[in-house]
Amino acid sequence: MGAAKFLRGLARRFPPRRLTVIVNTGDDENFYGLHVSPDVDTVTYTLAGMVNPAAGWGLKDDTFAALEALSRFYGKPWFNLGDRDLATHLYRTERLRSGASLSRVTAEIAKRLGGGAGILPMSDDRVHTWVKLRGRAAMPFQEYFVRNRARGNVERIELRGVEKARPLPAALTAIRQASAVILAPSNPFVSLGPILALKGVRRELQKMRPRVAAISPIVGGRTVKGPADRMMRAFGHEVSPLGVARLYRDIARVFIMDIRDRQYLEPVRELGMEPIAVDTVMTTPAKSARLAGIVLDALRV
Amino acid sequence: MGAAKFLRGLARRFPPRRLTVIVNTGDDENFYGLHVSPDVDTVTYTLAGMVNPAAGWGLKDDTFAALEALSRFYGKPWFNLGDRDLATHLYRTERLRSGASLSRVTAEIAKRLGGGAGILPMSDDRVHTWVKLRGRAAMPFQEYFVRNRARGNVERIELRGVEKARPLPAALTAIRQASAVILAPSNPFVSLGPILALKGVRRELQKMRPRVAAISPIVGGRTVKGPADRMMRAFGHEVSPLGVARLYRDIARVFIMDIRDRQYLEPVRELGMEPIAVDTVMTTPAKSARLAGIVLDALRV
Repeated sequence: MGAAKFLRGLARRFPPRRLTVIVNTGDDENFYGLHVSPDVDTVTYTLAGMVNPAAGWGLKDDTFAALEALSRFYGKPWFNLGDRDLATHLYRTERLRSGASLSRVTAEIAKRLGGGAGILPMSDDRVHTWVKLRGRAAMPFQEYFVRNRARGNVERIELRGVEKARPLPAALTAIRQASAVILAPSNPFVSLGPILALKGVRRELQKMRPRVAAISPIVGGRTVKGPADRMMRAFGHEVSPLGVARLYRDIARVFIMDIRDRQYLEPVRELGMEPIAVDTVMTTPAKSARLAGIVLDALRV
Repeated sequence: MGAAKFLRGLARRFPPRRLTVIVNTGDDENFYGLHVSPDVDTVTYTLAGMVNPAAGWGLKDDTFAALEALSRFYGKPWFNLGDRDLATHLYRTERLRSGASLSRVTAEIAKRLGGGAGILPMSDDRVHTWVKLRGRAAMPFQEYFVRNRARGNVERIELRGVEKARPLPAALTAIRQASAVILAPSNPFVSLGPILALKGVRRELQKMRPRVAAISPIVGGRTVKGPADRMMRAFGHEVSPLGVARLYRDIARVFIMDIRDRQYLEPVRELGMEPIAVDTVMTTPAKSARLAGIVLDALRV
């Protein structure tokens, strides 16, 4: 998750207490009767310094005894849930069942685990991302992404429920009141896409455009990780920072691309954006922090 | 749990496939949104050879990582749920939520874990055992038994919902068709009590009386474990095999007491029962099996 790596760096350059993270919940899923919010958890664990650094998701040093025992009842698992991680899902599920909103529970969890930043699910309403592969019926995002390891030719992304879902009011307020907004180097269709598709979010960002930066997840013609490159191609977009910039030109003034893509500086400038070419590949926390510093500087934060 | 120790022995002397165990569910409780059936689980794990032999409940070699992580959200836990054990509760909870009956889920779990015996919850309806201590408000059984370590002076046991609950039809059928019925050396009020309080159960056993044996949980004036002795005293019963025998005289022909209580052989015979005095303290599996063999012999099974 490029967003998590970026956040880890951002939290080194910006006081977490002043940071609000709006997180995709389109890939939330029910496993074993538990409400799992993979993106919210990754962000929460990352900011709390508890994330498993090797995997980029889940908790550091977690064990998998419960999951192994669950396989007796459900067969071989395809979605990993650690024992300590389960506690988060149990708590979330119980709180949701007792009537608490997802945003409230997310805040409670973030507070208990620490990290200091505000973490907001994009909506308290259910949006469910489905993926339609060529020759297959549509499937929930996690099934495509984890179970099928993002294989197959994506025909389209369905954001089920997105028309009816209201963006979290606190998220809209956070955007309005922010001194700057950063679109992390995430998948434009399944990570940022669901957030931007919520009614009113894109318009708020358009109003904020001078204070918005976007970071290209495409580096050297491909993604560092994940299927964003293949999705761009499938949906008829150029697989380059320019292709990404076109998706955000109405909502972002500053556009960050990798230094090896500097041939796109001029084409992106012609879109009316302010392009910056730097090293965006976050192989170490220090590199993440340096990238965050550059973005903050460009936004004059 | 005397019942579990006895069952462990019984399963060595009697083919588990022909064994049906009717289990109290009055002390079922909701923990972290999960439906936990402590007695059913202890019986299931025991018969599957998976029980933690030191504790007498829970799974052998289980770990407690999830519980430790849950304490971040819920504070220090007072009810132990192991990581592997959690899988059972997750499965049960999800199946119940999807509309399956407790008896069905119990059978599914027993089948997956193995052991071969039929395990029947006493009812698919909810009966909730509460304990009223002197000077305190009534509390759910697990709170009294585990959280408070069965301390305090019990004034009364409330079997909430027992009037409306129907005994499991399969349990009544099992009693009717059994070649013998054994009342395990369990607490007469909170373990056997809820089962016997269900409409029709006692009458079925009265009809079967010649084929029913009961085993005294009172040995040498006290229980091996648990608060049955104090409850007997509190409720005005003699704390002896005779006191126990009086509770079951209408439903059991054979009455097993410990050899050190043999002075009660005659008084129990005078109740119209057939008393047997043997070593009933099940300190080893072999001793459990020997006791089971004696009971089976007395019932001519």
